[in-house]
Amino acid sequence: MTRTSGWVDETYQGVVRTGFRLKKRLFKAKSPFQIVEVVETAGHGRLLLIDGMTMVSERDEFVYHEMIAHVPLFLHPRPRRVLVIGGGDGGTVREVLRHATVERCVLVEIDGMVVAASKKYIPQTASALSSRRAVVRIEDGVKFVRETSERFDVVLVDSTEPFGPAKELFGTAFYKDVRRILTERGIVVSQAGSPFYELGTIKNLTKILKTVFPVTDAYLFNNLTYPGGLWAFSYASKGIHPVRHFNSARVKSARLPLRWYNAEIHVGAFALPEFLRKAVGR
Amino acid sequence: MTRTSGWVDETYQGVVRTGFRLKKRLFKAKSPFQIVEVVETAGHGRLLLIDGMTMVSERDEFVYHEMIAHVPLFLHPRPRRVLVIGGGDGGTVREVLRHATVERCVLVEIDGMVVAASKKYIPQTASALSSRRAVVRIEDGVKFVRETSERFDVVLVDSTEPFGPAKELFGTAFYKDVRRILTERGIVVSQAGSPFYELGTIKNLTKILKTVFPVTDAYLFNNLTYPGGLWAFSYASKGIHPVRHFNSARVKSARLPLRWYNAEIHVGAFALPEFLRKAVGR
Repeated sequence: MTRTSGWVDETYQGVVRTGFRLKKRLFKAKSPFQIVEVVETAGHGRLLLIDGMTMVSERDEFVYHEMIAHVPLFLHPRPRRVLVIGGGDGGTVREVLRHATVERCVLVEIDGMVVAASKKYIPQTASALSSRRAVVRIEDGVKFVRETSERFDVVLVDSTEPFGPAKELFGTAFYKDVRRILTERGIVVSQAGSPFYELGTIKNLTKILKTVFPVTDAYLFNNLTYPGGLWAFSYASKGIHPVRHFNSARVKSARLPLRWYNAEIHVGAFALPEFLRKAVGR
Repeated sequence: MTRTSGWVDETYQGVVRTGFRLKKRLFKAKSPFQIVEVVETAGHGRLLLIDGMTMVSERDEFVYHEMIAHVPLFLHPRPRRVLVIGGGDGGTVREVLRHATVERCVLVEIDGMVVAASKKYIPQTASALSSRRAVVRIEDGVKFVRETSERFDVVLVDSTEPFGPAKELFGTAFYKDVRRILTERGIVVSQAGSPFYELGTIKNLTKILKTVFPVTDAYLFNNLTYPGGLWAFSYASKGIHPVRHFNSARVKSARLPLRWYNAEIHVGAFALPEFLRKAVGR
């Protein structure tokens, strides 16, 4: 991240950058894992940055968090226990807890500083972490899924990019452990990068998921503050198909106060552009 | 547009900017209407900028041009005559001419400098303008639709933003003229801005279209080099519904060499996020 006359810029692949007009720097520190930073911007509220990459902006975080959570939670017939790996800002947990069936949402975040900074500066997402139904564990998510005896209906991998502390979250061993801790009708959704700028990430992830799960797919959403604005999640399950098994009536009757996700968006998100459809072998 | 140590940046609404690593400046001049510029970038090929706003990047222009053209052209039962207003870079005409039924595609661009600069520097889009089936007219599109006696099956409004020379393209009088020159089953599609950053544009345009056409809608696409990456087209027709009357088999049998548009994307693009669905009153 560089600063030039009042902008906070994220440079991506050395060729494109996205900048936000800076108002004030609120927090910056180096944890054992990464550099964690919170800034106040003129047009996008507060931003959480990790190693100079925008993770959350108050203005558009609802898109990412609604799309990672509601797609699998409206597919699983009765999600009661949900695991979130990463996502220390709390936005994903907030959306998970909108589902009344959810009794327990465990967040496993490797970096306590992300949780602490979010709680202090971004209550819009982090306040969900104080819910009675939320459990926050500061530990390695890879180790957690390898060792836990708990079982989950839905696992959400809300990670940073496939390098640095999140590297192993993009590997086969991790997903075999995820399969083990998923209940019979379990679903796992993972942040899968920019299909436009880093097609390899979603191709590799899809390849790995296909060796571990009988149903795999990918879906798109618009993260307006990420480079290019187009971003992907990978989807895998023990049997539930993301479109054929989707019951749109359930979304309508739930009447959640959402701003992005709805029944049409659920189906539309799985429509992949031709180049991506070919890349993931659908 | 400003330059800081090798970047070409587009600042949008004063709060967000998108920058591309600059390699070389190829052309910059002021026409009677606007500043026209072509630069060579490190990661996005050549860029056409108008008044500092990115119009076309060689790397991602296929998305915009496939989406403005193929949605209406695969809906109209037999598009023979197509009118493009604006779009002097030629990318829209290129996609229109992929349809074998099209006998004549008229491009009406107000600014001859856009066409000349595109022909010289961006043949990837502009070479289509040399087709025997393409007619390029350098004149005011508003005046053209008011005065022409020609009739068109599809009109594509491939404009810049709703200020400057394109202002009237967002008004009621213009769309009444478009209705007049459209054939019985005619369709018009128009660039409608960022639904996230300028929701008012698509709201106003939809309101106008509803007073002129019996069928109106909006659809989304990802313009990766526009701010936020999420962009909208408005849709209006004399009767053809963009999803209910869509025949996906036609897309498959046409076998066009496309990279973005396909039958699933056609339908998925009309899935609007909740906030936008409410805004356009669907």
